[in-house]
Amino acid sequence: MRVKVSRQAHFNAAHRLYRADWSFEKNQEIFGLCNNPNYHGHNYELIVSVTGEIDPITGYVMDMKVLKDLIKSEVENAFDHKNLNLEVPEFKEMNPTAENIAVVIYHKLRPHIEADKDIEVVLYETPRNFVTYSGN
Amino acid sequence: MRVKVSRQAHFNAAHRLYRADWSFEKNQEIFGLCNNPNYHGHNYELIVSVTGEIDPITGYVMDMKVLKDLIKSEVENAFDHKNLNLEVPEFKEMNPTAENIAVVIYHKLRPHIEADKDIEVVLYETPRNFVTYSGN
Amino acid sequence: MRVKVSRQAHFNAAHRLYRADWSFEKNQEIFGLCNNPNYHGHNYELIVSVTGEIDPITGYVMDMKVLKDLIKSEVENAFDHKNLNLEVPEFKEMNPTAENIAVVIYHKLRPHIEADKDIEVVLYETPRNFVTYSGN
Amino acid sequence: MRVKVSRQAHFNAAHRLYRADWSFEKNQEIFGLCNNPNYHGHNYELIVSVTGEIDPITGYVMDMKVLKDLIKSEVENAFDHKNLNLEVPEFKEMNPTAENIAVVIYHKLRPHIEADKDIEVVLYETPRNFVTYSGN
Amino acid sequence: MRVKVSRQAHFNAAHRLYRADWSFEKNQEIFGLCNNPNYHGHNYELIVSVTGEIDPITGYVMDMKVLKDLIKSEVENAFDHKNLNLEVPEFKEMNPTAENIAVVIYHKLRPHIEADKDIEVVLYETPRNFVTYSGN
Amino acid sequence: MRVKVSRQAHFNAAHRLYRADWSFEKNQEIFGLCNNPNYHGHNYELIVSVTGEIDPITGYVMDMKVLKDLIKSEVENAFDHKNLNLEVPEFKEMNPTAENIAVVIYHKLRPHIEADKDIEVVLYETPRNFVTYSGN
Repeated sequence: MRVKVSRQAHFNAAHRLYRADWSFEKNQEIFGLCNNPNYHGHNYELIVSVTGEIDPITGYVMDMKVLKDLIKSEVENAFDHKNLNLEVPEFKEMNPTAENIAVVIYHKLRPHIEADKDIEVVLYETPRNFVTYSGN
Repeated sequence: MRVKVSRQAHFNAAHRLYRADWSFEKNQEIFGLCNNPNYHGHNYELIVSVTGEIDPITGYVMDMKVLKDLIKSEVENAFDHKNLNLEVPEFKEMNPTAENIAVVIYHKLRPHIEADKDIEVVLYETPRNFVTYSGN
Repeated sequence: MRVKVSRQAHFNAAHRLYRADWSFEKNQEIFGLCNNPNYHGHNYELIVSVTGEIDPITGYVMDMKVLKDLIKSEVENAFDHKNLNLEVPEFKEMNPTAENIAVVIYHKLRPHIEADKDIEVVLYETPRNFVTYSGN
Repeated sequence: MRVKVSRQAHFNAAHRLYRADWSFEKNQEIFGLCNNPNYHGHNYELIVSVTGEIDPITGYVMDMKVLKDLIKSEVENAFDHKNLNLEVPEFKEMNPTAENIAVVIYHKLRPHIEADKDIEVVLYETPRNFVTYSGN
Repeated sequence: MRVKVSRQAHFNAAHRLYRADWSFEKNQEIFGLCNNPNYHGHNYELIVSVTGEIDPITGYVMDMKVLKDLIKSEVENAFDHKNLNLEVPEFKEMNPTAENIAVVIYHKLRPHIEADKDIEVVLYETPRNFVTYSGN
Repeated sequence: MRVKVSRQAHFNAAHRLYRADWSFEKNQEIFGLCNNPNYHGHNYELIVSVTGEIDPITGYVMDMKVLKDLIKSEVENAFDHKNLNLEVPEFKEMNPTAENIAVVIYHKLRPHIEADKDIEVVLYETPRNFVTYSGN
C-alpha cells in the first residue's frame, strides 16, 4: 500500500532570468520582462510529496511534521526572502527558472529522505504558472 | 481515450492519533499534539477520481451526479460530524491517520465502481497536508 | 490615512454544540449533527485585521510579524489541537459556536493592541461558513 | 531531466448536454438539469501541462508566455463567451461534456507542441467537478 | 454584540447582456462578447451574510443550516442550470448583469429574514469579477 | 441602490523594506528579513472595488472591462516585473510596505474614476498578509 503524502510550504524571493553570456537585447528577446536587471519577485508555493509504504505501527508514510521541518531547514531557510541569483549558490551560473528551482529543491531534499521513497516537487511561481519534477 | 473524472467532497470529523498499546509518553513523543485524549478535528476535503473510457453514447466516463451520490452515501454519511476513533468501525483498531483514512475510503468505494475503472483518492487533512492513494 | 492590515492564521479543534440544561432530544432538534456527544472538528481559518494610521517612520500600521506572533500566543496556543468544550475555559459554560469563538478571540486580542486601533475577527468554520465580529 | 510545466487559463461558455436522437424525456433522465434547452453555463478553468526536457540554454521546458499565447489563440478564442453546442464546430454532433471538451482541447493543442513533449489537459467545469486527459 | 454570519453557495447559469431596444451594433459596442445572442455562462459563487445579535440561548445569530436551506429554496432553485434571460422572470426586462443579479437575490431573501437583521450579498461572476450589495 | 463592483488583478515585483537614514542594524531590527539589500519579491494580488449607483440603462456600476483596463494601464504597467524601490518613483523616498503600496495605488486610480464613486483597494502581499485602504 503505497501512499503519497504531500506538504505545502512557501517562500518569497527575487530573481532575474538571463544569461550572462548573452547581450541585453538577446536576453530581452528571450526572457522579456523577466530580464529586468533590477530583479522582480514571487511568492513561491511549494508542494513536496513523498510516496512510500504506510508504516503499520504508526499509520504514517512519513511524519508530516518531519517533512515540514525538513522543507523549512533545506528549502525555506535557503531561499526565503533571498535574491536567488545573488544569494543562492546553485543559481550563480544557472538561470533560476521555475524548472531549475524545482530540480534544485529535489536534489536538496533527496539525501534526507529514504531511498525507497519517491519524491515529487511542485512549484508555483504564480497562481497560474507551475512546474512538477519527480527526479526522472 | 481514457479520461479521469474527479469530484470534490468534504466532511468534518474529530480524531486522535495514538496506539492503545503504547504509554501516553510514547504516544506524545510520536504523535505530539495529535495525541490529545480529548480529540481535535479537521475539515477534510476529499477528491475522488475515476479513470475509464468515455462512453461514446453519453460522453461521460461516469455521471458526476452518480459519483457525488456515491461519495455521499459511502463516505460522508459514515464520517461527517463523527468521531473517527469511536464511531467509525474501521478505526477501532487502526490509527485514523490521513494515510489510513484514504485507504479506507478507497476500499469503501471500490466495490461500487466498475472493475475496469481506476480509482484515486486524495484527502486533505488541512489545506497544507494531503495524501493520495490509488490502490497500489 | 487609516489602513486595515490583515493576517490569516489557522487552528484545528474538536467541539460539540449543545446546552447542558437541555435534553438530548432538544439539543438534537436545535443543533443536529453538531450535537454529537463524541465531538466532531474543524480546520478553523482565522483572519485578524487591525485598522489604524500608517506610522510615517516605518510605513506600517502594525508589524505583521508582531500580529502573527500575537495570534500564535493568544489564539493558536490556546485553541490548536484542543477540544474547545473541555479544554478552553471560555467554553466551559458557553456554546462554542463560530459566533462565540469569534467574540472570544476578539477579547483575547483586544488588550494587546493599542486602543486607537480597531480590530476585526473573521473566522471560517468551514470553507463555506464563516463569521465576522468587530467589537460592536 | 523531464519537467512538467503547467499554465492555468479560463473561459466562460454556455452549453447543453443532450442527444438529438433521444426524446426529451430520455435526455432528462440521463442528463437532468444539464438538458435545459435554453442552456446553462460555466466558468471553465483550464490547466494545460507540457512535459519535456529542460533546455540547458534557457532553463525552460517551454516558455510559459508561448504556452499562454497558444492556449489563448487555440482555446480561449474558440470557446470564450461562446455557446459550445451552437458555435464550436466540434460539438455540432458531439455532446459537450467536460470529458469531450478536454479531449477536443488536447487535439487542438497537440499539433502546435513538439511531438517529444507530452501534453495533459485538466478542465474544471465547476470548482468541484473536473476531468483530466493525457492523450492515451 | 452584533456578528455577521456568512454562507457560501453557488449556481451555474447562462445569460446574455443586451438591451432589446438597442441595435446589435450598439449592444456589441457596450457589452462586447457578453452580447452573444447564443448566450454564454458562469459558475456564480454567492456569499450571503446576515448580521444580528447573538442569541444567548443558542450562540447563533442564525442557524447556518437554515440560511443554507433558504439560499437553496429562494436562489439556487430559481437560478441553477437556468438561462437567466429566458427563465428567470426578474430578468425578462432587466439586464442580468452581476449588479442586477445581486440586487434581485437581496430582494428574494429579504422577506425571509427578520427585519432587525442586515443582509449583504456578494456575487462572484468569475473568480476575478464580483459585486456586493447591502440594500442601501 | 449603491453596489460595489470588484476586480482582481495581480503583479509581481521585488522590494526591500528599510530607511536610508537608519543603520543596517537598526533596519535589521525593525524590518528583519525584509531588509535584505539584494531584495526579495512577491506575487501581489490586487482587488480594486468601485461603489456607486447602478446605471439603469446598462445595469452596470462600471464596466468591469474598463476597470480591468484601468488597473492594467495605471497599476500593472507601472509595477509588474519591477523593482519597487528602484523603478517606481513613489517609492524613491517612501518605504514600499503593503500599506504604502495600497495608498499609492488608490491615488493612481482616484483621478480616473468619477468623484461620486468610492474606491477601495485590497492588496495581498502574500496569501496570508493583506491590507485595505479606502481613502479615509
